[in-house]
Amino acid sequence: VSAVQPAGARTELTREMVQRALDAKTKPPGSLGRLESLAVQLALLQRTTAPAVDRARVVVFGADHGVAAEGVSAYPAAVTAEMMRNFARGGAAVTVLARANGADVEVVDVGVDADLAGLDGIVHAKVRRGTRNLAVEPAMTHAELEAALLVGRGAARRAAQDGVRALGLGEMGIGNTTTAAALLSAITGESPATTVGRGTGVADGTLEHKRAVVDRALRCHAAALHDPFARFAALGGLELAAIAGAALEAARLRIAVIVDGFISTVAVLAAMHLDPYAPLREAIVCAHRSAERGHGLALRALGAEPLLDLDMRLGEGSGAACAIPLVRSAARILTDMATFESAGVSGRVD
Amino acid sequence: VSAVQPAGARTELTREMVQRALDAKTKPPGSLGRLESLAVQLALLQRTTAPAVDRARVVVFGADHGVAAEGVSAYPAAVTAEMMRNFARGGAAVTVLARANGADVEVVDVGVDADLAGLDGIVHAKVRRGTRNLAVEPAMTHAELEAALLVGRGAARRAAQDGVRALGLGEMGIGNTTTAAALLSAITGESPATTVGRGTGVADGTLEHKRAVVDRALRCHAAALHDPFARFAALGGLELAAIAGAALEAARLRIAVIVDGFISTVAVLAAMHLDPYAPLREAIVCAHRSAERGHGLALRALGAEPLLDLDMRLGEGSGAACAIPLVRSAARILTDMATFESAGVSGRVD
Repeated sequence: VSAVQPAGARTELTREMVQRALDAKTKPPGSLGRLESLAVQLALLQRTTAPAVDRARVVVFGADHGVAAEGVSAYPAAVTAEMMRNFARGGAAVTVLARANGADVEVVDVGVDADLAGLDGIVHAKVRRGTRNLAVEPAMTHAELEAALLVGRGAARRAAQDGVRALGLGEMGIGNTTTAAALLSAITGESPATTVGRGTGVADGTLEHKRAVVDRALRCHAAALHDPFARFAALGGLELAAIAGAALEAARLRIAVIVDGFISTVAVLAAMHLDPYAPLREAIVCAHRSAERGHGLALRALGAEPLLDLDMRLGEGSGAACAIPLVRSAARILTDMATFESAGVSGRVD
Repeated sequence: VSAVQPAGARTELTREMVQRALDAKTKPPGSLGRLESLAVQLALLQRTTAPAVDRARVVVFGADHGVAAEGVSAYPAAVTAEMMRNFARGGAAVTVLARANGADVEVVDVGVDADLAGLDGIVHAKVRRGTRNLAVEPAMTHAELEAALLVGRGAARRAAQDGVRALGLGEMGIGNTTTAAALLSAITGESPATTVGRGTGVADGTLEHKRAVVDRALRCHAAALHDPFARFAALGGLELAAIAGAALEAARLRIAVIVDGFISTVAVLAAMHLDPYAPLREAIVCAHRSAERGHGLALRALGAEPLLDLDMRLGEGSGAACAIPLVRSAARILTDMATFESAGVSGRVD
């Protein structure tokens, strides 16, 4: 196992140096496909040809959405708080999948519309009890957006302190596919017909209604839509802002950001627009292609190709949890595989 | 966590019973996509709504190919034996990836053309030192094919004894994409132009030569091509036969068979033709879509959709190792997730 370390402060680890380390491993060049490009990304992110992703975490930000009052979800808004309790007890999909895949979970209340103060095992960082209804007024004030971004940054810093090298970003919030669709429309200029999907699985009638609600929100906040900060505040939500803050801070700390599905991707896209000079592209790994309608558009806007395509559409960070073994595997190629030389394996003859 | 067990010998666990157990979990129905269909498959295979895939293994069958003498690979035939030593020491891709993904590895010499008797940490079950050159004579006798199938069956039985519930089937053998392409052509009737690919990465000239070699083999063994047993013996190889035997026995023992890439898929397809009444379809999970040319055809012939699509083309069982966390995750949905009732989460409102 050879680790090419920069010889001095001026020596940058280059893509070519990492590729050379990969090509020395006992396998035909390029034969591990996406795992190899992921290994290169991790090496450059961690600035070593021996990157490590032993400790991984999925953080789940929970918050409510005023727009849920418009009847845009198949589930009642109370489910957000109920699911926070389910996360804390480890019975939800993301907690089960994280455990199965060697990642821990941090659950953060950044804006659930319920009193969760007595709930153990979660981080209490509520900015307010849910956003306002984006269809009729700004979802957040600028100060609330700032506060939610900081909650996310705090989660990334805790992860860094705990030695986490891959941070999945998940969420829980009844109504948040409506919020994310509005934000995606604002960012890309695409109509609600393209960005609004079935979320938790609404029927045709509710889907049409959901599109009309997003359309109304976009007209209501037309003056704010071209400013990355103002539109984020106007449309919400608190958990999307926390994801954005966590992504920006994790990237700054050179932690791999494992983007989950539709909500998570839109939040990271919004983060990229908030701070175009942040090193987000170097840090993000898109976990999976969600079955939610707007996700393909969000991924294209982010310029990212996801690792998995399993027809999942649950959110929470469930896709991120499933992708973590691939991220870990990619790092291990560089750290654990023998080279042709060290293993005494013959090279190509042609 | 509720486990619906058959009430008596006459009560069969049905797909509907498993789907009902899944739909009771705290998530919108179907929102975990392929993980849910995989959970159903595992439950039916293990005959319980609480399937377990805690112990997983990748078995790597190594063997040489007489056809390597035709110059069909980018690497010398000596690499098969050299890689067996690399597997035994844990420095190869499959050993690294299995370790990263919570699976153990068993390495079996079913026909390497070298004396490996002194090599610790592998199973010594050599049928012969490599197959004969399929382009000029039958690769194996019928007795040798039988023996290699039995070596595979033995590996599956050891897995069962060790409590393994998911068995990845990998291989090592310089020249084996040529063998597998010939076998795939024989099974499907497709020409070498469709079934022969670049393997370890041969250049254009060698690719054309490789196609000509397969074409010659198919004409040489024309009389045997319509008999599943005779064509397998004529074309080889020993590790493909071992994979076929392992798949048939694992399926009989109701162990999930994690099919790797091109070689592994062709071998399992050959197994299905050897024994059309074996419960293979219930047991097989295709790990990934390989970048090797013939793999798409082999997957279609098998009627399977792979879990991963990562542009990998290494073989060894490297793709199977990467898919194991998904198989484990699928089982955990059924065993570990709370239900709406147990977690006190509200149901749909629409």
